[in-house]
Amino acid sequence: MKALEEKIKQDGEVLSGDVLKVDRFLNHQIDTDFMFSIGQEFAQKFQDEKITKILTIESSGIAPAVMTGLQLHVPVIFARKHKSLTLTDDLYTANVYSFTKQTENQITVSRKYIEPNDRVLIIDDFLANGQAVFGLLEIAKQAQIEVAGVGIVIEKSFQPGADKIKAQGIHLESLARIKSLTDGQVEFMPE
Amino acid sequence: MKALEEKIKQDGEVLSGDVLKVDRFLNHQIDTDFMFSIGQEFAQKFQDEKITKILTIESSGIAPAVMTGLQLHVPVIFARKHKSLTLTDDLYTANVYSFTKQTENQITVSRKYIEPNDRVLIIDDFLANGQAVFGLLEIAKQAQIEVAGVGIVIEKSFQPGADKIKAQGIHLESLARIKSLTDGQVEFMPE
Repeated sequence: MKALEEKIKQDGEVLSGDVLKVDRFLNHQIDTDFMFSIGQEFAQKFQDEKITKILTIESSGIAPAVMTGLQLHVPVIFARKHKSLTLTDDLYTANVYSFTKQTENQITVSRKYIEPNDRVLIIDDFLANGQAVFGLLEIAKQAQIEVAGVGIVIEKSFQPGADKIKAQGIHLESLARIKSLTDGQVEFMPE
Repeated sequence: MKALEEKIKQDGEVLSGDVLKVDRFLNHQIDTDFMFSIGQEFAQKFQDEKITKILTIESSGIAPAVMTGLQLHVPVIFARKHKSLTLTDDLYTANVYSFTKQTENQITVSRKYIEPNDRVLIIDDFLANGQAVFGLLEIAKQAQIEVAGVGIVIEKSFQPGADKIKAQGIHLESLARIKSLTDGQVEFMPE
């Protein structure tokens, strides 16, 4: 998505340790009109996949997920990383290890909102090692539902997540694919 | 908002301790089309307030905030409750006590995304004791910007938050106002 690459070049900041900071438009401040166009892009890419529900993780996945759900007219479920007082039902759970934070979170989704015939689209803001996506795939497996695809706003193609997802035969669409962040420069994969 | 009251009656669940569970459409599973109409309602109520930015807190405030921002064509900033690796700038911080969880969280907003002439609209999913809103008001005060209003999806009018906000002369709009949750029944305030 050309407009996203330009946005990353214009507003993104490369920090040490291959960290790309995009909190000007994606995960702290949200450019709502731009996020709508991200939702349009995902909706178009997955329009033939008969999606019934979108699955994401709090917090940064919520905005792109709801904008996509709005355009596919399907609900969004966001997995919680922290215990909720009112989320007391039977839960699907998976462990998600964060390489950057070096912590493991248990993510949870209420069993109540997953139906046997659901075909889910997994949406997240970033894909690096793929831990968050694999946590959501684990939940889909427990729930015995089909995963119709994975939609990622920014993929760090030099980290192993994307290849591991594609190796499972899953339809992955990343709107921006970063080849490297060397020397503070963002280099994208060729289209 | 009549449609919201009906949705709460249909999909809400009253738990002990005056807890209203609406995770079927608002804060775990999100009904995206319905959330769009919530955004429309807020946009219409605050259309004359010259809003430049929306301020909310992760995670449940994000969906109603982005749907409102989309229709007012302004960005959303979500305050973080947890430390972020990439949110390392100068920060505005406030402490938010959760009565239900009996824990105190420090919420943070990057100074970078608040401008001197901003007029912010604060959006959140629930208003009970008002701690989250007062945390965001504290951040607005530190940033010396104007608060144009507070928009709440569900107000528990029998708890003190709403009155405390209105006592400060702030324009508060709550889309559903709950008078009581006694005996497992949701009773709304008269319009």
